[in-house]
Amino acid sequence: MPASLQRTRLTADEYANGILSADRVVLSKAITLVESKLPGDNAIAESLIEKILPHTGNAMRIGITGVPGVGKSTFIEAFGLYLISLSKSVAVLTIDPSSQRTQGSILGDKTRMESLSNHPKAFVRPSSTGNTLGGVNTRTRETMLLCEAFGFDVVIIETVGVGQSETTLRGIVDFFLLLMLAGAGDELQGIKRGIMEMADAIAINKADGDNVRMTELARREYQNALHLFPPSESGWVPEVVTCSSLHNEGMEKIFNIILKQDKHMRDVGYFNENRKHQNLNWMFETVNHHLQSDFYNHPKIKSQLVQLQQQVESGEVAAITAAHHLMKIFKEIKY
Amino acid sequence: MPASLQRTRLTADEYANGILSADRVVLSKAITLVESKLPGDNAIAESLIEKILPHTGNAMRIGITGVPGVGKSTFIEAFGLYLISLSKSVAVLTIDPSSQRTQGSILGDKTRMESLSNHPKAFVRPSSTGNTLGGVNTRTRETMLLCEAFGFDVVIIETVGVGQSETTLRGIVDFFLLLMLAGAGDELQGIKRGIMEMADAIAINKADGDNVRMTELARREYQNALHLFPPSESGWVPEVVTCSSLHNEGMEKIFNIILKQDKHMRDVGYFNENRKHQNLNWMFETVNHHLQSDFYNHPKIKSQLVQLQQQVESGEVAAITAAHHLMKIFKEIKY
Repeated sequence: MPASLQRTRLTADEYANGILSADRVVLSKAITLVESKLPGDNAIAESLIEKILPHTGNAMRIGITGVPGVGKSTFIEAFGLYLISLSKSVAVLTIDPSSQRTQGSILGDKTRMESLSNHPKAFVRPSSTGNTLGGVNTRTRETMLLCEAFGFDVVIIETVGVGQSETTLRGIVDFFLLLMLAGAGDELQGIKRGIMEMADAIAINKADGDNVRMTELARREYQNALHLFPPSESGWVPEVVTCSSLHNEGMEKIFNIILKQDKHMRDVGYFNENRKHQNLNWMFETVNHHLQSDFYNHPKIKSQLVQLQQQVESGEVAAITAAHHLMKIFKEIKY
Repeated sequence: MPASLQRTRLTADEYANGILSADRVVLSKAITLVESKLPGDNAIAESLIEKILPHTGNAMRIGITGVPGVGKSTFIEAFGLYLISLSKSVAVLTIDPSSQRTQGSILGDKTRMESLSNHPKAFVRPSSTGNTLGGVNTRTRETMLLCEAFGFDVVIIETVGVGQSETTLRGIVDFFLLLMLAGAGDELQGIKRGIMEMADAIAINKADGDNVRMTELARREYQNALHLFPPSESGWVPEVVTCSSLHNEGMEKIFNIILKQDKHMRDVGYFNENRKHQNLNWMFETVNHHLQSDFYNHPKIKSQLVQLQQQVESGEVAAITAAHHLMKIFKEIKY
């Protein structure tokens, strides 16, 4: 590690104390630490998470997704400012799959949510997606915990609704909001199937101007459609609302649904069960992530994988043969 | 391995030759081999799959799911006999999560589909779910390949639509049929959310007697609802039909939808892409399965896991700490 980079690292205690005394600079640095892939950083990060863990679990954890163009940033800005008007502090973690390529998403996101980013009661932090294509990774959960320990009342995690990341996100948050546009045509292209059934609520955005009637029609159609679909385990029935981020309309309605769902989840005992279940999954996911990353990042595996992939795709080599061949190489190295 | 058990095993060549010459006894034995967890069997099974691989890929692969009570067995019996009336041979693999507990599903399933089971052009084989709770495991795919190499024109794989297994099943088959009942009330309870969006078609069963009007109403509602949902990547729009397994009605309609989807998939080039993608996934799933099974079945991991699970659930220990603790133990043993 270059000395210049090393110097920016604090001890786990310094990070923890900084976060618990609501020092934003330390929070930012701690998130960078948690997202780091350097082995030395992982140990500090783990120790940090352990220290702050007793101070976590008190925020409302809200996941928001929707395809590009649906107006996520504008919505989160309007919704975040509404929450602040209720004296709540808000952390927003945006997961931008493009950040890996452009390295420019930090500036991008801050520009996207200018009023919210600059508000003293808000904290907007874009996450690079790291290894996980287009998505939420194991570190997103840890970043969320840092924000909770800092004291934010609400943590919003935003993803682009086109990949695998929504399933992961659903496994982190308490409430999952899907943003949509009216019209079942082109606007739906790109949304991953299955996402709709994961939503606790659907908000049809851009209910303004000429669009008001169409969004209301869409709202009714979706509400009817959702009734045909299987109820969730918790018995919560998803609600569909319209909103206009542009005119700050519908924010109260959406927040009331979140409160209603929260009450429902606590009343039926699902809230705690879900959090427990999420904790356990976090453990298994972390283990599985490490097992796979040890395997697929090993030079001897990497050197064989590309060719084997082609042979398996073409049907030349049986997938099971390829898998066992890779396992054999790995066992010879490791065991 | 007891000598008595070992004697029932053939060589990989004997299995392959038996299957390729359509010997049913050998097919049954080969499936038992593939499902076996004995390490010696795995090597023979892998060699067998390699030998038969060039003879696979020619069957229609159909997944069927639906909650208990929807009439899956009666449907598959009626549908299977319809396919046979078109001179097609049919293999049915039923995945019964209860077989792990009762050990009695083999008799159970054969009784359930008596006419089909006894037909010379059909083959009905229940699979125990093995390690995978309620579901399709890595071996289901291999069993399907054995049936293809044997020469079956259609392979039907049935699961109970309540668990994780449907996602796995979707990743094996070409066409995914969801069986439902009319009425959005109690009948929906138990269906896993997200399954509906995976379906290529929904068949509303028990469209007979007093129920005909209700099923037709339900059909229209679901068809309308599905139009609101995101289109699949392939551009295929799921269809909803009614059927009566009891009166053998709707079987032709359903098969025509399957043929139509098959043509669509081939026309847009998705059929081959999907099969390639499925092959690749099979490799990754096999590797990941082995990595995890090596880990979680290790006595030193097992001995720690129960206590750690409790501590993580209760929030006493951070999931990431528990995961890293387990990884450390594992690395000390293995590396």
